[in-house]
Amino acid sequence: MGVLRLAHVDVRTPDLELSTAYYTEVLGLHVSERTDDAVYLKCWDEEDHHSLRLRSDTRIGMDKFSFRVEREDDLADLEIRLANAGCDVRRVSKGEEVGQGESIQFEIPSGQTMELVWDLEKVGNVLGKLNPSPVPPPDLPGIAPPRMDHLLINAEEVGESYAFFKHVLGFRMTEQVLDGNGHQLGVWMERSHSPHDVAIVNGPNGALHHFAFWLDDWDHVRKSADILAYNGVQIDQGPTRHGVTRGNTIYFFDPLGTRNEVFTGGYSPDPDFPQITWTEDQFGRGLFYYENVVAQRFLRFHT
Amino acid sequence: MGVLRLAHVDVRTPDLELSTAYYTEVLGLHVSERTDDAVYLKCWDEEDHHSLRLRSDTRIGMDKFSFRVEREDDLADLEIRLANAGCDVRRVSKGEEVGQGESIQFEIPSGQTMELVWDLEKVGNVLGKLNPSPVPPPDLPGIAPPRMDHLLINAEEVGESYAFFKHVLGFRMTEQVLDGNGHQLGVWMERSHSPHDVAIVNGPNGALHHFAFWLDDWDHVRKSADILAYNGVQIDQGPTRHGVTRGNTIYFFDPLGTRNEVFTGGYSPDPDFPQITWTEDQFGRGLFYYENVVAQRFLRFHT
Amino acid sequence: MGVLRLAHVDVRTPDLELSTAYYTEVLGLHVSERTDDAVYLKCWDEEDHHSLRLRSDTRIGMDKFSFRVEREDDLADLEIRLANAGCDVRRVSKGEEVGQGESIQFEIPSGQTMELVWDLEKVGNVLGKLNPSPVPPPDLPGIAPPRMDHLLINAEEVGESYAFFKHVLGFRMTEQVLDGNGHQLGVWMERSHSPHDVAIVNGPNGALHHFAFWLDDWDHVRKSADILAYNGVQIDQGPTRHGVTRGNTIYFFDPLGTRNEVFTGGYSPDPDFPQITWTEDQFGRGLFYYENVVAQRFLRFHT
Amino acid sequence: MGVLRLAHVDVRTPDLELSTAYYTEVLGLHVSERTDDAVYLKCWDEEDHHSLRLRSDTRIGMDKFSFRVEREDDLADLEIRLANAGCDVRRVSKGEEVGQGESIQFEIPSGQTMELVWDLEKVGNVLGKLNPSPVPPPDLPGIAPPRMDHLLINAEEVGESYAFFKHVLGFRMTEQVLDGNGHQLGVWMERSHSPHDVAIVNGPNGALHHFAFWLDDWDHVRKSADILAYNGVQIDQGPTRHGVTRGNTIYFFDPLGTRNEVFTGGYSPDPDFPQITWTEDQFGRGLFYYENVVAQRFLRFHT
Repeated sequence: MGVLRLAHVDVRTPDLELSTAYYTEVLGLHVSERTDDAVYLKCWDEEDHHSLRLRSDTRIGMDKFSFRVEREDDLADLEIRLANAGCDVRRVSKGEEVGQGESIQFEIPSGQTMELVWDLEKVGNVLGKLNPSPVPPPDLPGIAPPRMDHLLINAEEVGESYAFFKHVLGFRMTEQVLDGNGHQLGVWMERSHSPHDVAIVNGPNGALHHFAFWLDDWDHVRKSADILAYNGVQIDQGPTRHGVTRGNTIYFFDPLGTRNEVFTGGYSPDPDFPQITWTEDQFGRGLFYYENVVAQRFLRFHT
Repeated sequence: MGVLRLAHVDVRTPDLELSTAYYTEVLGLHVSERTDDAVYLKCWDEEDHHSLRLRSDTRIGMDKFSFRVEREDDLADLEIRLANAGCDVRRVSKGEEVGQGESIQFEIPSGQTMELVWDLEKVGNVLGKLNPSPVPPPDLPGIAPPRMDHLLINAEEVGESYAFFKHVLGFRMTEQVLDGNGHQLGVWMERSHSPHDVAIVNGPNGALHHFAFWLDDWDHVRKSADILAYNGVQIDQGPTRHGVTRGNTIYFFDPLGTRNEVFTGGYSPDPDFPQITWTEDQFGRGLFYYENVVAQRFLRFHT
Repeated sequence: MGVLRLAHVDVRTPDLELSTAYYTEVLGLHVSERTDDAVYLKCWDEEDHHSLRLRSDTRIGMDKFSFRVEREDDLADLEIRLANAGCDVRRVSKGEEVGQGESIQFEIPSGQTMELVWDLEKVGNVLGKLNPSPVPPPDLPGIAPPRMDHLLINAEEVGESYAFFKHVLGFRMTEQVLDGNGHQLGVWMERSHSPHDVAIVNGPNGALHHFAFWLDDWDHVRKSADILAYNGVQIDQGPTRHGVTRGNTIYFFDPLGTRNEVFTGGYSPDPDFPQITWTEDQFGRGLFYYENVVAQRFLRFHT
Repeated sequence: MGVLRLAHVDVRTPDLELSTAYYTEVLGLHVSERTDDAVYLKCWDEEDHHSLRLRSDTRIGMDKFSFRVEREDDLADLEIRLANAGCDVRRVSKGEEVGQGESIQFEIPSGQTMELVWDLEKVGNVLGKLNPSPVPPPDLPGIAPPRMDHLLINAEEVGESYAFFKHVLGFRMTEQVLDGNGHQLGVWMERSHSPHDVAIVNGPNGALHHFAFWLDDWDHVRKSADILAYNGVQIDQGPTRHGVTRGNTIYFFDPLGTRNEVFTGGYSPDPDFPQITWTEDQFGRGLFYYENVVAQRFLRFHT
């Protein structure tokens, strides 16, 4: 009951064709629908209509991010909780958004727009449900991640945002970074029994730091790096390993400057998982275990 | 709410010392407690007291398997559901079982004893919670899987057992194998958003087919095969890939003949995941994708 | 000086189109030339014209196998050595064979035809020589091994064949299997500082057991198994590990029944490498380290 | 005939105990002998007495590097060639150096001392030669590379050094980097049919840039990175991929500042391999394919 997992991330691009070419040919996503000003994309193992929306706009940035709730009734329950918390909640009717039914939208304390939805149009994965191959077709182009995994947003007041995600939306913290005064510099939170579905790190309100695609393993990480370099994509960091979440990772930029990640690994936390704390002096190691430095471009660049 | 995940598997061994030596030195589990007639073992990333209990007995076989519920109250709710379904439920008080508090035990339709528990003694994983290394100490002995993953039991009437797990315990089926008449030969079910926490395949009532440890990736699978062969352990099947669940796997036998598995991979199903169906003529490919045969030793041997 | 490495294997097929489709689409070789009755194929990293020739014929089997010598003069030197050893050596002029210049051909003691050649037509690999990408294009179809690696032939008298390869051709033995009487059941020999360029195992004279393609690593082994299974190719054994040579491997059959292998790993022997000996009772473990059995189909089936 | 492969690298350390602890516990080498002022170390798969000598001295740096020749007679032949080239060759008698017999030593044009030797004391690898396990004992400590692979030295005049290695010692160039005037900034050369046994890159005469250990694959690269980070070792670059040689790599520093590398991958060049050329504008991509920048610390720091 309650929030289930990340459903989709909706971002803007000043060059819809270039972005679409990149996300289909380099990332290897499938276009499930095109409208006048937007392209809807999905990964090969996703059942839903899309996990990424690209919308044509003069500026890059995030329109909103959307989480799926577990049961249809959860939307009404969460609407009440949000209203009680002083949120201005907008109910979006079926038909207003492509590829999904009714949803609710609201602004979180750090200024980003968040959406909750249960009714996602099911288009099915690439394998089908009768005697399916356990592997996708060998000739899928690009990185071909099986699914979207998580996103990281910025907040000027991480602690305030965490309180909102915890108390109103029921997110559970797995890890946090504390400064010398015990203030949160970053929090990692989950609903899907993974190390994180969303993370919040200190930075400007409203900003998107990155969204991440799941990979199967460390070899898929290398294949991804090879494909990125082959295509001349700018790699921001990695292949490396996170201290926080334990995952192996590469950060890189799409052609318009939106940061992407490919990610694998981690652990499987119970809802009462004992939280992990990082002290500020170990933040470099927590971010990038091999490099052991606080990478400035990584921390300072967002969209 | 409800059943959360597999907690521990309790098996018998006629040679407790030999079994303990195998599970600590070859599998690489840690002994968390010894009693007069039993040894309690855990994997390095598990927070709980144990995930495997070995009990000295003249015959191999399974005493019971235990699932954790998400909330303390779930035990009482499930006790009522079980009683309504005609189950004879035994409430086990705190202190009766090592490493855990109150639980309920009952016999499932295929004759195995199942337990539900919420209060597991937390002993912590090997890494700690303050600036933890994202990798375990490099010198852990043996295979060193991070955690127990699932088990497979046998049932003469798979469909009847599935109905019990679905309607009484709230398990969700991810995959099934149907014979030509539409009867279930095997079902794979989950509560933890993984391809399976427990599977039931046609075979003698009361039998344990195997329990499985999670591995990180395909390279951990090879390392496991190397360690098993180096130690002269009999490998039953693999390294190979399942059609069902998509996972990479090795099956092998502990020194007394209990089948173990190491497993990695799979997918991340939503609670309303559209179920996958295998037809009987594709069962060989579903079991072992590379071999594409119905392996007789695999299907006919259980404990 | 002397023999350098395996150059190409020439086999027959009753269905040239089917075999070509398999070797291009599943194995992922490139067709470098077609003639009336033959197709010439190469791997993506090979510089030479071809490493596999398929010739249309009513029966499968091997026409010949060809090794490259290090220097042009080596051909004349080896021709003399072969003549002195009583071999009937045929000199093949430039223009007689596609994709290569002058060569010498002769029958080895176990009846197969062997060729030595220096002048191979250079067509270049897929990457080029100016600022080349270190990885092949990501969209190469099929398994896409970088190169042919070795072959295994059968001989009724392994010891006699070994003596010929050692004394006449200068091959160096890396490993051998001895029966209880000290007779060789199998020998592995190299010229290229790898565990083996050619192996001879007890079996019918004239037979080809398999030829093998090099893979980069264990992940390429799994990708190969996935591609083979996806395409319905019959896997003979593996993914597994050899005791002999240490390599990771899969054996499988092309559509007409010729056995292929993909292979990776091993060691880097000096010319005075101290030879490894396997006793017959450990032959199962030597062949397949994980399975630890002498696989009968593997030993008894050849073409 | 001629030079066969890298035999050993002899470096200085101001803290012999600390260096020995690092090379045994983190790198996982075995100590084969200790003398008053030196420690001799070998990798688990090496047959020879040692591949690394650490000598106590007030300053770090390289004493010499040593290549093995293929045949005993090669020493005398090469001595003549070196003398004809104007080298001052010193013959070192059996007994003068630990773990080896007669050798010749000389200064190469860029000022480093090089040694050629045939008679290396054979102490055998860890596996033995009778029914050996194909994998090393699972509990080897540290990274445990199977063998030393290559070294990189600096030279003010790369072209001059290359001419010496080519014409006097018979090395074959596989790759080179040219500046806009066609002058060599770096050359990679081999004798062992690998992408490089020694490389020379522009820098101060006499300097050692790094020596490298061979790893089995990309997973061994990650395991190495995990072990290095776990032990607090400073990583210089990687895990990443080279454009030049195609290999996957990590660079890191031993406790006294000598740069180490772990390396895997590459190709298998014939003696007449068509050489690869990189233009200066692509040097960043040639060094580190994923980062695509000329890393200044990497280029400017040597010992």
